[in-house]
Amino acid sequence: MTKNITTLQILICCIFLCLNTMAQEHPSLILTKKGVQKIRAELGNVPLFDATLQQLKEEIDAEINLGIDTPVPKDYSGGYTHERHKRNMVVMQQAGVLYQILEDEKYAEYVKDMLMQYEAMYKTLPLHPKTRSYARGKLFWQCLNDSNWLVYVSQAYDCIYDYLDKAERKKLEKNLFRPFADHISVDSPQFYQRVHNHSTWGNAAVGMIGLVMNDQELIDRALYGIKGVNLDKTAKDDDGGFLNKDGKAGFLANIEEPFSPDGYYNEGPYYQRYAMYPFLIFAEGLHNVKPELKIFEYKDGVLLKSIDALLNLSDADGDFFPLNDGQKGMSFYNNALVTAVDISYYFGNQDPGLLSIAAKQNKVLLDDSGLAVALGVKNGKALPFEKKSINLSDGPNGKQGGVGILRSEGLELVFKYASQGSSHGHYDKLSYSFYENGDEVLQDYGLARFVNIEQKGGGNYLKENKTWAKQTIAHNTVVLNEQSHYQGKYDIGSKYHPSLYVFDSAKENIQIVSAKETNAYPGTEMHRTMAIIKQDGFEKPFMLDILKISSDSTNQYDLPFYFMGQVVSTNIDYEAPKTLEALGNGYGYQHLWLEGSGTTEDENTKFSWLENGRFYTLTSATNNNDEFKFVRIGANDPEFNLRREAGLILRRKDTQNTLFVSTVESHGSYSPVSELALNSNSNIKELKVIFDSAAYTAIEIKDVKDGTSIFILANTNASKDANHKLKINDKDYEWSGSYYFNKQ
Amino acid sequence: MTKNITTLQILICCIFLCLNTMAQEHPSLILTKKGVQKIRAELGNVPLFDATLQQLKEEIDAEINLGIDTPVPKDYSGGYTHERHKRNMVVMQQAGVLYQILEDEKYAEYVKDMLMQYEAMYKTLPLHPKTRSYARGKLFWQCLNDSNWLVYVSQAYDCIYDYLDKAERKKLEKNLFRPFADHISVDSPQFYQRVHNHSTWGNAAVGMIGLVMNDQELIDRALYGIKGVNLDKTAKDDDGGFLNKDGKAGFLANIEEPFSPDGYYNEGPYYQRYAMYPFLIFAEGLHNVKPELKIFEYKDGVLLKSIDALLNLSDADGDFFPLNDGQKGMSFYNNALVTAVDISYYFGNQDPGLLSIAAKQNKVLLDDSGLAVALGVKNGKALPFEKKSINLSDGPNGKQGGVGILRSEGLELVFKYASQGSSHGHYDKLSYSFYENGDEVLQDYGLARFVNIEQKGGGNYLKENKTWAKQTIAHNTVVLNEQSHYQGKYDIGSKYHPSLYVFDSAKENIQIVSAKETNAYPGTEMHRTMAIIKQDGFEKPFMLDILKISSDSTNQYDLPFYFMGQVVSTNIDYEAPKTLEALGNGYGYQHLWLEGSGTTEDENTKFSWLENGRFYTLTSATNNNDEFKFVRIGANDPEFNLRREAGLILRRKDTQNTLFVSTVESHGSYSPVSELALNSNSNIKELKVIFDSAAYTAIEIKDVKDGTSIFILANTNASKDANHKLKINDKDYEWSGSYYFNKQ
Repeated sequence: MTKNITTLQILICCIFLCLNTMAQEHPSLILTKKGVQKIRAELGNVPLFDATLQQLKEEIDAEINLGIDTPVPKDYSGGYTHERHKRNMVVMQQAGVLYQILEDEKYAEYVKDMLMQYEAMYKTLPLHPKTRSYARGKLFWQCLNDSNWLVYVSQAYDCIYDYLDKAERKKLEKNLFRPFADHISVDSPQFYQRVHNHSTWGNAAVGMIGLVMNDQELIDRALYGIKGVNLDKTAKDDDGGFLNKDGKAGFLANIEEPFSPDGYYNEGPYYQRYAMYPFLIFAEGLHNVKPELKIFEYKDGVLLKSIDALLNLSDADGDFFPLNDGQKGMSFYNNALVTAVDISYYFGNQDPGLLSIAAKQNKVLLDDSGLAVALGVKNGKALPFEKKSINLSDGPNGKQGGVGILRSEGLELVFKYASQGSSHGHYDKLSYSFYENGDEVLQDYGLARFVNIEQKGGGNYLKENKTWAKQTIAHNTVVLNEQSHYQGKYDIGSKYHPSLYVFDSAKENIQIVSAKETNAYPGTEMHRTMAIIKQDGFEKPFMLDILKISSDSTNQYDLPFYFMGQVVSTNIDYEAPKTLEALGNGYGYQHLWLEGSGTTEDENTKFSWLENGRFYTLTSATNNNDEFKFVRIGANDPEFNLRREAGLILRRKDTQNTLFVSTVESHGSYSPVSELALNSNSNIKELKVIFDSAAYTAIEIKDVKDGTSIFILANTNASKDANHKLKINDKDYEWSGSYYFNKQ
Repeated sequence: MTKNITTLQILICCIFLCLNTMAQEHPSLILTKKGVQKIRAELGNVPLFDATLQQLKEEIDAEINLGIDTPVPKDYSGGYTHERHKRNMVVMQQAGVLYQILEDEKYAEYVKDMLMQYEAMYKTLPLHPKTRSYARGKLFWQCLNDSNWLVYVSQAYDCIYDYLDKAERKKLEKNLFRPFADHISVDSPQFYQRVHNHSTWGNAAVGMIGLVMNDQELIDRALYGIKGVNLDKTAKDDDGGFLNKDGKAGFLANIEEPFSPDGYYNEGPYYQRYAMYPFLIFAEGLHNVKPELKIFEYKDGVLLKSIDALLNLSDADGDFFPLNDGQKGMSFYNNALVTAVDISYYFGNQDPGLLSIAAKQNKVLLDDSGLAVALGVKNGKALPFEKKSINLSDGPNGKQGGVGILRSEGLELVFKYASQGSSHGHYDKLSYSFYENGDEVLQDYGLARFVNIEQKGGGNYLKENKTWAKQTIAHNTVVLNEQSHYQGKYDIGSKYHPSLYVFDSAKENIQIVSAKETNAYPGTEMHRTMAIIKQDGFEKPFMLDILKISSDSTNQYDLPFYFMGQVVSTNIDYEAPKTLEALGNGYGYQHLWLEGSGTTEDENTKFSWLENGRFYTLTSATNNNDEFKFVRIGANDPEFNLRREAGLILRRKDTQNTLFVSTVESHGSYSPVSELALNSNSNIKELKVIFDSAAYTAIEIKDVKDGTSIFILANTNASKDANHKLKINDKDYEWSGSYYFNKQ
C-alpha cells in the first residue's frame, strides 16, 4: 500500500510539474483562445449573442468616457465608494471580454489603467473603516464584497494577460492580486474557512486568480481550504450561524455540503441564485484550465443538477419561491441565472428547454457557452422548459428532509420539509405556499429586508426579519402554544429536520407529498400530508391538506392561512374589534394585529377570497370549539418594514391529539373590464373526516352535486408494497401502498 | 312668424309622412342592407373583422347547442335567472348579426324561437319578485336591466325582421315589444322620465324598438320623453339623487344635460363608459334610419367629442381614472369602448389614433363601422393614440368646473374641480390623483363596491361607499374640522362647483391647472394650483402643489396623501401606537386606523416611498406645529369591504388663513432582480415660501446642487394680459399672465 501511494503521489507531482512548465495560454479561464476564435468567426450571425455584445459595448464605451475612479473606500452598501468599486469590477471584467472579442486595445488599456490604480492604492490600504462585519474587507466593508471583486477581476486579468508585459504582471500580482487573495483567505479565516455561501465566493476568488496566475498554492487553498487552519467550532457569525461546526472548508467542501444529491441548496433558491455565480464561474475556469479535475462530474454532476433544481424552484413567471430568507421578485432573469442556464446548456446535455429560458432572458454569456446557446436559439432548437412536480431532497446525502413541489394546471404547491437551511433558515417545518399562474394564493412572507435600499437599515436584514419573518407564525404551518418550532433557536433547529413520508406525483388524478416532524416540539409528532386532486365536476384541481398531530401534552394549536387578496365571504361568525391589539407578545405574534375573532357552528368552515381575478375557497373540517382569528401583519412595526398583508388563523385550544383537514379550491373568475363574476362559489359541499386512528385517517369530499371521493392515508406504513384493509361505515376498503384515493 | 312656423310644421309633417309610407328596409338599425353586402364581399380579407366574427361564431354555436332557456325571473344580479336573461339578450343580438353576415338560417331560427318563448312568457309576466329597486322590471329586478335587454333585442329583431312573416312580427310586437317598451317608460316614469344614465338606457331601448317597428310614437317618446308626464321635483332615487329636479327627459335631454361641450360626462368616466353604449348604439340607429336628425352633429357633435374625452380620461394602460364612483380596472378594453372607438372612427374623422386602440382591443363591431376600422388596421393606417394634457369643462354649458389632466413623460396628474357628478359624485373638490406609467402613485380610492360579485352585498354599493368612499377624507384634498365638503350632503353639493382659475399646458417646462372653491365650507376659500415642472438637474418632471386657504374662521385642516407603496424614509419624528384606534367618528374618519403620529423640526417635511420599482418623495414646506398622521384604511369595516391601503395626513390646527405647499418627485428605480437601487434620494434640497399675500404667492425650489427656480402665482387676476410686478427679497420680478416661472 505504502508503495502504491508513493507511486501515485509521484505521478501527480509529475502531472503538475508538466502542466506548470507548459506555458499557459491566455485567455484560458472563462474565455479560451480557441473559443474566442470561434466567437470572432460567428460575429454578426448570431442575433442573441450579437445583441448582448452590442449592448455591452455601448455600456462599456459610456463607462470609459466617464473616466476611471477608484475612490478611497469609505461607505457601506448603497454608498458611493461601495457602489463604484462594485461597478468597477464588472466593468473591468466586461472590458476584458470586449478586448478579446473585438480586438480593440482601448478596452485592454482601460482595464490595465484601472488595475494599476488599484495596485497603487491597495498596497497601503488599511482595513475598510466600517466595522460592522465579522470579516472586514479592504475595498469593501466585508470580505464577501472583496471576494466578489476578485472573482470578476480575475477574468479581466486573464483577458488582458498577454497585453501586459512581464513587469506589469509581476507588479500587479505582487502588490495587488496575491495580497488581495491572502487578505480574504489566510487573513480572514472566519470568512474563508467555512461551508457557507460567503466562503464559496472567497474560494472562487482565490482559485480564479490562482488559475490565471498559475499559482498552485492558491488553487489548492481554493479547492481544499487554508492548510492547517481550524476554527473554533462553537463560534457564530453575524447572522447567528455557526462559523465552522464541522471543520470543513474549501470549494469542494462547499459543493459537498450545501447541495443535496438532487441539487437542492440548503439555504434555498434565493441564496442558491446568489451563490451560483462563483460555483459555476470557478467551475468553468477549472474545467478549462484543470480539465483533469472533472469538476462538472464532481459529486455525480451536482453542479449542473443544481441548476435544474433551481429552475424548478421558480414559479410560472420564473420568480423563485421565497423559501427561508428570500426576497420576492428575484427570478431567473437575474444575471447569475444567465450564467447558470448557459453553462448548464453547454457543459450539460444541451437541453432545448434551457434555450427557451435563454430567449426570455434575452441575454447570453459572452463566451463559448453563450455562443452555443445563442446558436441554439438561432437555429430554432428551443423548446418550452417544462416544470413538473418534483421532490428535492435536502442535506449532503439527501437525508435531511427536502422540498416537494406539486404542479397541476397552473397550480403550484411548494411543501417545505427541509432542514434548517443554515443561518438564513426559517422556523417553518411542514409549511407550504400555494401559487396559481405565478401569483401567490397562500403566501410565504419571505424575508424582512429591502436588499441594497440604504434608507431601510442600510439595505441589510431588518430586525423584523428575526422577530417576524423567521418565526413559525409567519408561515402556513402549525404553531404550538404561541412558540416557534425549536423555540426559534438556531442551535436546536440545526440538529433536526422533518422526514419524508411519501412523495408520489406519478398519478393523473392525485399527486401527494407527506412528511413528519417530531422535534419542533419535543413530545409532539406533526404529520402533514398535502395533495393536489383532479376530480370530475371540479373546474380545476384542488388542494387537500391533512395535518395530524399526536402529542403527549395538551396544547393550543394555531394554523394560519396567509391568503392573498380580498375577503369575499365566510360562514365564520366573528366580531371585529373597535381597537386593534397585537395577537401576542413574542415569536412573531407581536407583529399581528387582531382584526376579527369568531367561531362557526357549521361542520365545515368556509372562507372565500378574491385575488388577481380568481376566486379561492378554503374549506375546513372544524368543530364548534375552534376559534378563528383574522389577522394583519404590521403590529409593533414602527418603521413600516412589514407589508400589511392578511391571514386567517384557525386556533384549537386545550387539545392533545388532533387533526386539521382543509381544502383550497381555485374557482371561477372576475374581470373588472367585463364585470362578470363566474363560478364564484365553492364546489365542495362537505369535507368530512370519516375515520381517524393512529394507523389510518380517512377523508370524504363531497361536491355540490353529491359526487364523493374518499382519501385514506396509512399513517404509519408508507411502503409501496404494504397491503391495507379497512372497514369504514360498513364499507370495506382495500389497497396497497401508503394511500387510497377514489371517486365513489 | 306664425305663418313661417306653420309652413315649417307642414314641411316636417310631410317628410315624416313620406318616410313612414316608404317601406322600411331591414336590417336598417345598426347593420344596413348595403353595409351587409359590403361586409359579405370583404369576408376573409380583413383579419381583425374575420377574427372577431370567427370568435363570435364559435361562441354562439356553442350557445345554440346548449339550447334555449328563458327561466321565470327570480334572482338579483349574479343569480341564475338574471344572468341567463342577460346572456340571452347578447346572444340574440349576436345571432342576428351572424344571420345577416353568414346568411345561415339557423341563427335566425334560434332568435325567432327564443323571441317566441319570451313572447309566451311576457304577456302574463308580473313585476319581478325582488322588491329592492325604485323601478322594478319584469325580466329583471330593475327596469334598467329590462332596458338593456330591449336595446340588444331590438337589434336582433331588426336582423331577422324579414325572416319572420307578418303574423309573427305582429305577435311579437303586440305581446312583447310594445308592452315591454311601455313598461319601462309610461309604466315606470320615475325611471324613464329623467336625466340619468338609467334613463338613457330606457330612452334608447324604447327608441330602438321604435325604429325597427317604425313606430313614431315610441321614437318620439325616446327622443323627447313621455308626453305630459312631470315628476315630483323633490323626489329622490335609491342613490340619493334627485329623480327629476328640472323636469327634463328623453334622449336629447340626456345628451344635452350630462355632457359638457368638451364631452365630459358629469358622472365621470366609469359611468360614461356604462352610459356610452346606449348613447352610441341608438345614435347609430338614428343616423341610419332617421339621418335627417343629424344626431352625430347634435350639440356641436358632442357624442363623438365625448368619446375622445373618455379616452383621454384613461391612464397609460387604458384604465379609466376612478373619479366619483368608479371601479378600478375598468378600461378601454370594455366592449362599450369597442363600440365607441369604432363609431367614433367611422362617423367621425377617421382618426388613425383610434385604430391603434382598436388593435389593442383586438375586436371590432360586426357592422359598417367595425369593418371600416378593421380595414384601416389592415391597411396599416394605425398611429399611436397620443393622450395629451387636456382640460375638460363640466356642466351642460361647460360652466360647472371640470377636470384638468396634466401629462408629462409618463406622469399623469388628474385634478378634479368638477361639479357634484349626480348621485355617483364624491365630495372631493380640488382633489387629485397622480399616476406614473399607468400605476397609481397617489391614489383616488374609487368606489366601495364589488360590481356583480353577489357575495359582497349582492354586487351593489356597499355601505362603506357612503361612509368612506364618497367622503372628503378619502381623497387627496383638504378637510376642515373633520367634516366633508358641503357637509357631505348631496343637495348642497349639487348646487355648487369650483371654478377654473388657470389651465395652461402649452409650455415645455411647466404645465399648470388652478381652481377655486368657495362653497365647500361657507366662509372659506380654497385655491389649489397644481403644476408639472420639467427642470434641468431633475431626472423626471415633478409635481408642485399649492393650496391656499382664506377663511373667516379658525379651523383644523387635514391634507391627506394616499401614497401607494411601502414607506422608505421620512424626517417626521413620530410614535407608532401599541393599539390602533380610529382617527375619528364620522365623515370617513371612522374608517382610518391611526398608525403613527408625529411632527418635524425641519423646515421641509420629507417622506419617501417605493412602489412598482420606483421611488417617490413628498417634500412639504411645513412648520413645527404641523402634525402628521400615518393612517390605514380599514377601521370599522367588519366585512373587510375596504382595501387596507395607507395614507399620510398633514394636520394643521387652530389656523385661519394658511398655505400648503408640496412637491412630489418620482425618482430612480429598484429592481428585485438586479437588486440595484438607483437614485433613491430626493433631488430637492429646499422648498420655500418666499412671499405670500392675498395677491401673490411665491415659491422657491432649490435642488441638491443649489439650482433654484421660482414660481409666483397671481392669486386674484388670471388674465393672460395682466402685467405684474413684485419685489421679493430685493429682487424684482415682472411678468404678464397669471403666473411666473423661471430657473434662476
